[in-house]
Order: sequence, then structure tokens, then C-alpha cells
Amino acid sequence: MNNSALGIFDSGVGGLTVVRAVQELLPAENIVYLGDTARVPYGSKSPETIRRFSDEDVRYLLTQQVKAIVVACNTATAHALPMLQERYQIPIVGVIEAGVEAVLADPEAQRVGIIATRGTIASHAYQHALAQRRTGMVIVEQATPLLVPLIEENWIEHPATRQVLDTYLQPLLEKQIDTLLLACTHYPLLVPILQEMIGDRVRIVDSASTCALHLQHELMRRAMLAEPERAGTLSIALTDLSDQFEVLAKRFLRKCPPHITRVEL
Amino acid sequence: MNNSALGIFDSGVGGLTVVRAVQELLPAENIVYLGDTARVPYGSKSPETIRRFSDEDVRYLLTQQVKAIVVACNTATAHALPMLQERYQIPIVGVIEAGVEAVLADPEAQRVGIIATRGTIASHAYQHALAQRRTGMVIVEQATPLLVPLIEENWIEHPATRQVLDTYLQPLLEKQIDTLLLACTHYPLLVPILQEMIGDRVRIVDSASTCALHLQHELMRRAMLAEPERAGTLSIALTDLSDQFEVLAKRFLRKCPPHITRVEL
Repeated sequence: MNNSALGIFDSGVGGLTVVRAVQELLPAENIVYLGDTARVPYGSKSPETIRRFSDEDVRYLLTQQVKAIVVACNTATAHALPMLQERYQIPIVGVIEAGVEAVLADPEAQRVGIIATRGTIASHAYQHALAQRRTGMVIVEQATPLLVPLIEENWIEHPATRQVLDTYLQPLLEKQIDTLLLACTHYPLLVPILQEMIGDRVRIVDSASTCALHLQHELMRRAMLAEPERAGTLSIALTDLSDQFEVLAKRFLRKCPPHITRVEL
Repeated sequence: MNNSALGIFDSGVGGLTVVRAVQELLPAENIVYLGDTARVPYGSKSPETIRRFSDEDVRYLLTQQVKAIVVACNTATAHALPMLQERYQIPIVGVIEAGVEAVLADPEAQRVGIIATRGTIASHAYQHALAQRRTGMVIVEQATPLLVPLIEENWIEHPATRQVLDTYLQPLLEKQIDTLLLACTHYPLLVPILQEMIGDRVRIVDSASTCALHLQHELMRRAMLAEPERAGTLSIALTDLSDQFEVLAKRFLRKCPPHITRVEL
């Protein structure tokens, strides 16, 4: 048993979809969330810069005495996770392994489309992990850099979003994918419109929910779960505060966020 | 006469539209450009964070022995220019005064629409400056946060951009504006599509070209222009390097950029 907090970080507030999933599965855990909103987004930046920022994020969480860290950002997981795991002693879990497991949970999955930021796609991290685990898979990657801005503007219902998605999804549908992997923690908010556009035949997989499951296994294996009877707390720290981020935080968390503090890294 | 370089900074590479205008008007000037691409965009961040980042940008340019600084970013001008001018001794020029002058150059301009990032609009800097200089003006402000991502993706010709612009322009056209002020250094790339959508009756004003004129006046007044016979140089420093930024730099500059160096602030 270990009642210390879990640290969860993302480039912005999108990682709160992971927080929500962790709270649902592991309600006894205290969570310290860090969103690097002063430097968001990471998805369009270079691997070197993403590694430097991710390292600073981890260092902040370590000052909060966390027992384990979740990298709730696909871009940071893709470029920085191996470096972070090597550099620090505590368990550090990313979203990619979880997403890969979720895809493979369906033994029939053979034609997988992956949508993500430019940075995540450029890393080919998902493609690599999937190809290692199931041979003969057809994997189609598509960078979808405009989705984060559209989601952050809450333009999910706007006709422009549908037109952007039309362009992004076309090459995936032409390859007759059976599975669509949402490889960005922002994208769960698009599930209804995506399902409508691609039809029931294509299974949508998001990494937020499976990431929580992955974390649970990791904590159990190391006997690091919190005592089950307690009620976990959530604190949120952002590197930049604005009204906009508070509105977004509520949307991703699907409830009012607790008091948010601003920190400098 | 003063042959030291001009320092020009922006949150990213959009400010290269200002560099281009300065090079055309003042070809003898050496220019040191700084783009804070590691932390781009500024437009959605808080005034406090924008001031902190802008201050760090200026400090970097001062290490390059510049004789004057141009804040080639509307959001940074709106929130940080007065602080910077107070804090540092060398001349610091922003884009807002230039944009305001360009609007007022037409004595008939009475109904002005302003499009800009969320941060620039929230500052009401343009509205304030215009209202002080010409009474009775109708000023309609519209935050257009999706335009920078669409321009950076080079989706200017995509139907989604037209649909986004439809939504953004509608409240301005309903107010029957006679002038549209592009209050973001990215937006000059949209001039052809904007002119097509709003018609010839509305005059489009962009701050990049008038900013160069404003700078020229300021340097002449202080006898700080470079010797006219020389050929000015351009060096570009970015806080993050990626292929994407190089492609964008070329588009904004309308020619191949010189060798780009990466710097940490």
C-alpha cells in the first residue's frame, strides 16, 4: 500500500481525459496533475524540445513526492518515455503501450488507422509497437494537427470540423481500416462525430481509458495501490492560467475542476 | 548613422512578414530575428505569461547588440509593449501603432472590423487606440483563433478555411464594416481569400507593411538608420527547430530563409 499521489502530466489540459479515467478506476488515489499550458502544444515541436520539456515536467512532479508518473500526452510518450524511464527510479507509464494493448484486445484487428499530432506520427511509435506485436497488420498513419485547435475552440459541432475530418479520414477509409486509434488525449471528445462519420463497422479505440487500466496493473504488480477505503484527491497545476483553460479543463474532466494553481518550471 | 542590427521578434515565424516588409523598405539594415517557436503560440496565453516571454525575447536580442527592437507580434505588443518600453533604454516599436495609423490613413474609415488572436482581442488595445484618435468610430472586434493553425498547415485554399472565415466574418459584415484590420502577423497570407469573401467595398489593412514605415520614421528621427549603400543581412534564431518551421519561414518570407540557428532563452 502506498498513499502517495500519482503524478500525471500533459502539454496542456487534454490529459485530463486520462485523469478522469484514472479517477473512475482508482478512486482512492490522490492525483497531482501538471499541464504545461505556457508551452502548449508539444505536438508540433521537435523531439529534442519535447524531451527537454517532458523532463522539466517530471522534475516538477517529483517535488510533489509522487509515487509514480503517467505521461498523459502521446507526443511526450512517443519522444520522451524511454529517456524518462532510464533517468528516474519511480515507475513512469505512457499512453502508447495502453493504446497498443487496446487495439490488440480485438483479435480480428488487422487494418488500423492512427490519428495523432504531427509529432506523434513522425515518431512512428504506435506503428512500431503494433508491428512488433502482430504480424501482417496494415497500419495507416495520419497526422491531424488541426483537431486540437478545433477541440480547444469547442467547434466540435461546426461544419468546418466535419470538413477537416473528411480530409483527414479519407485516406484511412480508402484503406478500409477496421480500427481507428485516437492517439491524442484530446480526441475522445470527437468520438460521437467520428463514429457517425466512419460508421459502426470501424472500432474506435482511445488510449485514455486503457491507460488507466495499464496503470492499475503496474501499481498492483508493485504493491503500490492506495488503501481502497480512502477518497482520493485531485490537485491541478498549470504553467499558465487563463479563463479559456478553466473552461477546457471542465470539459475534459466532465466536472468542475478543483482550484487550479499556477507554477513555473 | 548606426549600422548595428535591428532586433525583430515574434512568438513564432509569422513575424517574418514584418521582416519582409522591413527588408523591402530598409534594405541596408542588418536584422536579427528571434521566433519563440518552442513556446508558440502566445495568442491563447495569459497577459502575465506573454509579458514574461516577451521580456525574455528582448533580453536575448539585447545580447545581440541590436540598436532597436520591433515587436512583430500583435499579442506581445498588446500586452507587453508599455512594460518593455519602460524597462529598456533602446527604441522598441510595436505593430499596433502602425496598424492604427494605417486604418486612419483613410479619412473615410468609420466602421472598422478587427480580427486577431484571442489575446490581442482581449486586450482591446486596437479598439482603445482607434477610439482615442477618431471619435464616433464603430469598432467590431472578433477573436479568430483558428486562423493561425489553418495558415500554419497551409490550408488556405481548403474549404474548411472558407467555412471558418464565414463564421468569423459574419458578425463583421452584419455591422457593415468599411475597413478590415488584420491584427496578426500571420494574416497577410489570407488577403486574397479575404478580399474575395468580403468584396472590394471593404479595405483590408495589414500591420506588417505599415510597421516597416513606422520603424523607418522612428530610426530617422533618432538618426539611427544604417548607411544607405550597404546590403543588410538577416539572421534567424528560433527556440525550436523543425522541418515544419523551415517550410513556414519560407512561405512568410517569400524566399529561402538563411541558415537558422536554435537558441535557448
